[in-house]
Amino acid sequence: MAHINVPEGVPGIRSLVMFRPETGKYLYDLAEVLLRGESPLSQANRELIAAYVSKRNDCFFCMSSHAAAARCLFPEGDTVVDDVLNDMEQANISSKMKALLNIAGKVQILGKQVTETDIAAAKDLGATDKEIHDTVLIAAAFCMFNRYVDGLASFTPTDPEAYKEMGKRMVQGYSLPTSPVNA
Amino acid sequence: MAHINVPEGVPGIRSLVMFRPETGKYLYDLAEVLLRGESPLSQANRELIAAYVSKRNDCFFCMSSHAAAARCLFPEGDTVVDDVLNDMEQANISSKMKALLNIAGKVQILGKQVTETDIAAAKDLGATDKEIHDTVLIAAAFCMFNRYVDGLASFTPTDPEAYKEMGKRMVQGYSLPTSPVNA
Repeated sequence: MAHINVPEGVPGIRSLVMFRPETGKYLYDLAEVLLRGESPLSQANRELIAAYVSKRNDCFFCMSSHAAAARCLFPEGDTVVDDVLNDMEQANISSKMKALLNIAGKVQILGKQVTETDIAAAKDLGATDKEIHDTVLIAAAFCMFNRYVDGLASFTPTDPEAYKEMGKRMVQGYSLPTSPVNA
Repeated sequence: MAHINVPEGVPGIRSLVMFRPETGKYLYDLAEVLLRGESPLSQANRELIAAYVSKRNDCFFCMSSHAAAARCLFPEGDTVVDDVLNDMEQANISSKMKALLNIAGKVQILGKQVTETDIAAAKDLGATDKEIHDTVLIAAAFCMFNRYVDGLASFTPTDPEAYKEMGKRMVQGYSLPTSPVNA
């Protein structure tokens, strides 16, 4: 049970923003601009960063839901999302994307963990300032979302099918839920 | 020097949101609703939570600026902000506020660190669900802001006077800077 009196049976952040839509609106706006707005990073790669950081923060809800969204955005049958979550270094992704995920992983620990060497490695592989910026901000934002969801012990479904449906909806965009029906 | 090409000499998050106002707008909107919007927690106590979490995340810029804002919001001559930053348990604040700062400190580590015992302790001292919610979300949000500011190595002034001026401006509200002039 959640630590506070949120709508029963509504999973994750959705229950929290229904409890407090005044702040929830801005959280959904932020997710929308970070993950669906204009960026040099593809939506698939942005969802991948979100899932990767959420796994490192041990947030099962955010990891599962954003991994599901990422799976919808990569070509069908591509195992890249699960490969990255299992072992990023061995996954079949570009060296540039590995360098960006390395930076995201450092951000997950703490901001000062990102070194000039990490940044230089990404830039040498062609990463632009905007790509580095968006990677750092998405990683930082999931350090917030993960703590919000788990810090209030919101409901975390365990059925993989629930996340599959969630992922499909998330691909359509992030907007404040108004009732549990469209949760 | 910052890891990416942001405006020179503009401190902290301000330089980052000038580099990327498309996302910056939503970060300032979030800070405004969390720290200045309607809440059962006073603005002074919300800035105190922000400074406390930022100190724990070793983010000198956010700690110094939000401590400065908090000092403006508590009665003049009150040493509560520095007392909490030095040793929260010994500070002259209510037991309820100590229980809420304890929760904020757990969120700073990771969401799942918040236990039912932590929550029960706060509720026994009169904390409402909304107060607990806002504490968790502010703490989580500063785990994002701190990582954003330090993860991109934004400019961090060392002169205490710079933060004093910043604090005074922050009390007026958070809105997206449009030029370095009003930074």
